[in-house]
Amino acid sequence: MADNRGVTYQGPGTVEVRDLDYPGLVLRDGPGVHPDNVGRECPHGAILKVLTTNICGSDQHMVRGRTTAPHGLVLGHEILGEVVETGPGVEFIKVGDVCSVPFNIACGRCRNCKEGKTGICLNVNPDRPGSAYGYVDMGGWLGGQSEFVMVPYADWNLLRFPDRDQAMEKILDLTMLSDIFPTGYHGAVSAGVTTGSTVYVAGAGPVGLAAAASAQLLGAAVVIVADLNEERLAQARSFGCETVDVSKGDPKDQIEQILGVPEVDAGVDAVGFEARGHGAGAATEAPATVLNSLMELTAAGGAIGIPGLYVTGDPGGVDDAAKRGALSLSLGTGWAKSLSFVTGQCPVMRYNRQLMQAILHDRVQIAKAVNATVISLDDAPRGYAEFDSGASRKYVIDPHGVTGKAA
Amino acid sequence: MADNRGVTYQGPGTVEVRDLDYPGLVLRDGPGVHPDNVGRECPHGAILKVLTTNICGSDQHMVRGRTTAPHGLVLGHEILGEVVETGPGVEFIKVGDVCSVPFNIACGRCRNCKEGKTGICLNVNPDRPGSAYGYVDMGGWLGGQSEFVMVPYADWNLLRFPDRDQAMEKILDLTMLSDIFPTGYHGAVSAGVTTGSTVYVAGAGPVGLAAAASAQLLGAAVVIVADLNEERLAQARSFGCETVDVSKGDPKDQIEQILGVPEVDAGVDAVGFEARGHGAGAATEAPATVLNSLMELTAAGGAIGIPGLYVTGDPGGVDDAAKRGALSLSLGTGWAKSLSFVTGQCPVMRYNRQLMQAILHDRVQIAKAVNATVISLDDAPRGYAEFDSGASRKYVIDPHGVTGKAA
Amino acid sequence: MADNRGVTYQGPGTVEVRDLDYPGLVLRDGPGVHPDNVGRECPHGAILKVLTTNICGSDQHMVRGRTTAPHGLVLGHEILGEVVETGPGVEFIKVGDVCSVPFNIACGRCRNCKEGKTGICLNVNPDRPGSAYGYVDMGGWLGGQSEFVMVPYADWNLLRFPDRDQAMEKILDLTMLSDIFPTGYHGAVSAGVTTGSTVYVAGAGPVGLAAAASAQLLGAAVVIVADLNEERLAQARSFGCETVDVSKGDPKDQIEQILGVPEVDAGVDAVGFEARGHGAGAATEAPATVLNSLMELTAAGGAIGIPGLYVTGDPGGVDDAAKRGALSLSLGTGWAKSLSFVTGQCPVMRYNRQLMQAILHDRVQIAKAVNATVISLDDAPRGYAEFDSGASRKYVIDPHGVTGKAA
Amino acid sequence: MADNRGVTYQGPGTVEVRDLDYPGLVLRDGPGVHPDNVGRECPHGAILKVLTTNICGSDQHMVRGRTTAPHGLVLGHEILGEVVETGPGVEFIKVGDVCSVPFNIACGRCRNCKEGKTGICLNVNPDRPGSAYGYVDMGGWLGGQSEFVMVPYADWNLLRFPDRDQAMEKILDLTMLSDIFPTGYHGAVSAGVTTGSTVYVAGAGPVGLAAAASAQLLGAAVVIVADLNEERLAQARSFGCETVDVSKGDPKDQIEQILGVPEVDAGVDAVGFEARGHGAGAATEAPATVLNSLMELTAAGGAIGIPGLYVTGDPGGVDDAAKRGALSLSLGTGWAKSLSFVTGQCPVMRYNRQLMQAILHDRVQIAKAVNATVISLDDAPRGYAEFDSGASRKYVIDPHGVTGKAA
Repeated sequence: MADNRGVTYQGPGTVEVRDLDYPGLVLRDGPGVHPDNVGRECPHGAILKVLTTNICGSDQHMVRGRTTAPHGLVLGHEILGEVVETGPGVEFIKVGDVCSVPFNIACGRCRNCKEGKTGICLNVNPDRPGSAYGYVDMGGWLGGQSEFVMVPYADWNLLRFPDRDQAMEKILDLTMLSDIFPTGYHGAVSAGVTTGSTVYVAGAGPVGLAAAASAQLLGAAVVIVADLNEERLAQARSFGCETVDVSKGDPKDQIEQILGVPEVDAGVDAVGFEARGHGAGAATEAPATVLNSLMELTAAGGAIGIPGLYVTGDPGGVDDAAKRGALSLSLGTGWAKSLSFVTGQCPVMRYNRQLMQAILHDRVQIAKAVNATVISLDDAPRGYAEFDSGASRKYVIDPHGVTGKAA
Repeated sequence: MADNRGVTYQGPGTVEVRDLDYPGLVLRDGPGVHPDNVGRECPHGAILKVLTTNICGSDQHMVRGRTTAPHGLVLGHEILGEVVETGPGVEFIKVGDVCSVPFNIACGRCRNCKEGKTGICLNVNPDRPGSAYGYVDMGGWLGGQSEFVMVPYADWNLLRFPDRDQAMEKILDLTMLSDIFPTGYHGAVSAGVTTGSTVYVAGAGPVGLAAAASAQLLGAAVVIVADLNEERLAQARSFGCETVDVSKGDPKDQIEQILGVPEVDAGVDAVGFEARGHGAGAATEAPATVLNSLMELTAAGGAIGIPGLYVTGDPGGVDDAAKRGALSLSLGTGWAKSLSFVTGQCPVMRYNRQLMQAILHDRVQIAKAVNATVISLDDAPRGYAEFDSGASRKYVIDPHGVTGKAA
Repeated sequence: MADNRGVTYQGPGTVEVRDLDYPGLVLRDGPGVHPDNVGRECPHGAILKVLTTNICGSDQHMVRGRTTAPHGLVLGHEILGEVVETGPGVEFIKVGDVCSVPFNIACGRCRNCKEGKTGICLNVNPDRPGSAYGYVDMGGWLGGQSEFVMVPYADWNLLRFPDRDQAMEKILDLTMLSDIFPTGYHGAVSAGVTTGSTVYVAGAGPVGLAAAASAQLLGAAVVIVADLNEERLAQARSFGCETVDVSKGDPKDQIEQILGVPEVDAGVDAVGFEARGHGAGAATEAPATVLNSLMELTAAGGAIGIPGLYVTGDPGGVDDAAKRGALSLSLGTGWAKSLSFVTGQCPVMRYNRQLMQAILHDRVQIAKAVNATVISLDDAPRGYAEFDSGASRKYVIDPHGVTGKAA
Repeated sequence: MADNRGVTYQGPGTVEVRDLDYPGLVLRDGPGVHPDNVGRECPHGAILKVLTTNICGSDQHMVRGRTTAPHGLVLGHEILGEVVETGPGVEFIKVGDVCSVPFNIACGRCRNCKEGKTGICLNVNPDRPGSAYGYVDMGGWLGGQSEFVMVPYADWNLLRFPDRDQAMEKILDLTMLSDIFPTGYHGAVSAGVTTGSTVYVAGAGPVGLAAAASAQLLGAAVVIVADLNEERLAQARSFGCETVDVSKGDPKDQIEQILGVPEVDAGVDAVGFEARGHGAGAATEAPATVLNSLMELTAAGGAIGIPGLYVTGDPGGVDDAAKRGALSLSLGTGWAKSLSFVTGQCPVMRYNRQLMQAILHDRVQIAKAVNATVISLDDAPRGYAEFDSGASRKYVIDPHGVTGKAA
């Protein structure tokens, strides 16, 4: 039996669970590891036994072959685990702590980290600011859809849960703290959602649903979720959202039917570059559709939060512009309305402690909102496939069978 | 039969319903009207038929004889009404509109109004920035605990409800928009309450309860309300707050029992200058008790919102310092913890539209939280007396019997 | 002799000074007046004797024939004047007051005005939120490049200078308060410029120069201004800016030579939709050039302020996309760096009082920075022509010869 | 010759330069070291050769015997130095780096550090949040008025200057980055100072002068500095401030003479608990004078920044209340004006990089503003004495004679 096993990318459409080395307090060479990171010592790191680790929509970009991810890449950046070993530079995190791991890897020592911008840490990815576990072009830190994973700068990165038993009881909610809950919340916050807002969330995948739940938590008066997948829209309605089916006509009209006016205070793009058209053409990929639509639907003076991923180049893009990552945006529409736009990775650490408190005190049911579904590590390939086919589920891998809930 | 009737202050402990002149679009001379305001023309004003008007804790300061309020002063600054006449300078508000009236009177034309600081408008009170209806030393604008009232600068001040029937249905919630709901919300916001916060609200009167409900709306993880009136504490528990009985020992210990730590992220002073001591001495007036206690209970880096009224002079104060409005504050305790303090009247207009949206879309039950209790105009004196004796109720006067709910 | 004279648009490339009716407290029918605004009474208005009124780059968009502006439109939205008559609804502004007029017309009574968003007032332009004097599709309010002009909602809109003599002495600085100084300042503020920032301002026209001067006032460490007009770059250097000549190679390299790093903390787009290419192709119009360049040049975590105008449709655009107002933006570049974008008209009222204080107390020399050049009303056509040909001057029309400085 | 020498407190009124142990990467037992900190290992630390280290007004509180500081305490928390050794846990700071040391010691790993609240770090002082070098009740970290000092959590705490030669050239400005420049700036920022503000700074000691220079950097229109020491007031005037001599009558009247109105937009308390009375009684200590005065002088809607130190207990206080740290504050005055108050240690790291940029690019002359005066380590006792007697100088100790400027 191997020391470690994990989900690996093996080419377009293929993920496989493979044997892996047990992680050490060093970043060893391997698929996708940046040369400058090979051999990087991590006395500040901790080894975690992974208790839960979720499949993310952005993993799908790689698995669909829309990136340059190398074969053999260990996937997974949504991690909750128990500390089983700490390096000599770790002072406050202890073996036995159950923790959430922010998907953005951050050093806690650079200018950006000091400013709370942990999504664009300057010291972890030799290519550019910002990094993540198990992701292409992010420096090569090993993914966490595995039994064990190494977390560098553990004192800085890890969020410890105050009580182990309570954490195990609420683990399906807490596992959302590593990415989609803060990411959705960031989308809502950066769209200016506050008490009494009307909100339009484009996309009813897990991030969109998390943005919707976050908007409710922020006091929004009405949250409207849009998609063209009826199962996902039903999921949104299950926790009190209104919905718009973009395959059934102009969102503007549908919003007017709900609100009495054809626009909202705040817009969230939880779709990103793989957007599809609206109305009759809804099946076709049309990368600028969501943003152009949000500029129309958001009232003057509003803001648009863009947690959905946009890429600098997309080999699988529908046309030349898309391949270069160029979008045809009607910016004048936004300008006439004095709109603001906020892009980028969510700096998870800015929000995760607060959201943990909201979970622990039963102020939000995020697992329910995103339809958390537990599977075993060996079932990860099935999870990827079902998620890709549009299942309205958030797949949570339980590599050690600790939740007792794997389907 | 008179053209107008209203609640008047007739000396310490005495309020009476008296006949009044029907209001005009002018501020005529009368009890408490500032000489510079006598004869002030208000072509920008509107006459409202008062539908509901609430008794406020700050009215009690006057009625208890703690101020220099003149006999005959028409009371009342919490007003919801229907527009029955508009001046020639009113352009957007129309006869028939049902509106909430922010208790702060503001001109909408001075520097402070332009900056959204409507609680300290420079043009409505010759004595100082800031004004209110029916209040001592506030310029002399007539109170709204009456059948009809004049609202100056109506286009600026009035918040119109989008639908009349819906407004009538939710009138007990909407009537809280003129003062205590925004005031409590402002207390919570200025204390830094946000998603996941732990909050301590000193005082379980209507403003304290509104601050507590607001903290929940803002996503607080735990809201603790403190008082020495068990009926009011029970009211706080009725909508999910934790409570501290300050007559039963140190709040610090009680907080620790609730949270596991003896401090909170955010503190709200919903008591003000008529504070009483904690513990055994809880019956005695001790003006600095609440603020000193909040400095102890609020964690380093936190903020203290102070919607509770502090006065510049208090003829009825317990000692010379209190009479001068001087408080003995342990500011060093706050300084060592880098605390911030926010004081003053709530600028109602900054929040009332948002909170209206939250009410109309059922995101908050503020009437229930403060135990709204409808009485007729003639029963106002009884309302004042019961409220003063500590009843955990928010008295809502219904001068025309439109709610059908008067007890 | 006529009662009023003003600058009018008479077709592409042609402006003429024509006789006009003396303005009244009403919006009469005329070229460009929206049907719903015809006959609109303005008892809240004031008539101003125009003391100075500047030619703006956005006027040039109309004069170049890039819009649907009707022949006969009276131009001019940058106005400083003396009040010579007030309507019956004006209470605080008095005849004789010397005032700055924010170019955005605002009612001071709608939701957006109450929130300080005076650039998108809901009540002055029947077509959409936001308005301006003398501008196409903005409701039809008469322009101020004339001897007299009517300002509606005078108590709300006008900024009175505290002292007449001081105002006349500093009139060339104060005349910039109606538009370009706040607009440049807004660009800098919304780009996040603060103490110690490095800033890149694209465009060395008056707004770009005002943004640069504003960045200095905000404490920026280094301000770099880019253009392809050497005279304008020299003007930027005259008050301490560094410069980049975009016709001479990649801005990135030039920035690196200045700063040691190839990126800045904050970026300002003071060009807008009529942008030209960089490098060899600098002469060709290339609408997305500036924004794509700013995404490259702005460091991760930064913001881009976009005071430069982008339009919803541009009949004179270089290609079909430009005609529709569609820009080909590499949004992925911005997303990877977590950039924010702020667009729209500057809400002048948010800043003009502060900036007036800075001028009156000699903290900034804005007239010098933008090279204010006074001309007579009759010389306005010459001013338009010279400005259009790239003169590094800000033309200030002095219709009554009050400055004694007309060239 | 000893390995290290430093300034030590030897009882009220007495400081002496003594031989000290060379620092190690451990906090050894000694005067004032908290038992829980004894033996604390610091593999994350660095040893600095101290290049400059300033005497602070808050050091004087200890030297005057107003605290419980133990004899033998090594003083000094304003440090600029060159790294001569790094622990094994230090990754980015290198030997040879010339750095500023924020006076607040912070771990970079606790909740408060993650939120940027480095003035109240939870992990460095066993007694309470927040710590500093060489200060009573702050955990016992050794002071930096010495030849060598150990800085824990060096990657987090140290601000490296980009160029060594440039740093040595501007060392008298850069040495102010460890405390008084950010502290003064924090005072100004938390008072709401921005473009065009009128500002009143109480106290013309180094922090007051730094607050005044900061207010100018922030774009203030008028900065008024108040004191009763004419030499210090002259220093304030030397860089363009207006002044108020509080010994010569009511500040209100003096402000009115300067501004035309008797109040300012923003107030800064750069005095703290050792305040003296105003007017005739100016010689007498009167702890609440400054704050009560600021509440009177600050316009409604303003804020008061309080960088001046207030203590929880003051054994040397003028009366019982002062000994308990209780101040008699007229909070009602502040409440009526909706004032805000911000207290506490400046979180230096929030500002020091920005302010460094402003210094390096010649946007501010802070050394000149505070009258930096270099002395040798052996002259430190003289510096303490002169500073205590009111010299308007900021004493900068140069332990190794590197500046070539020691008087």
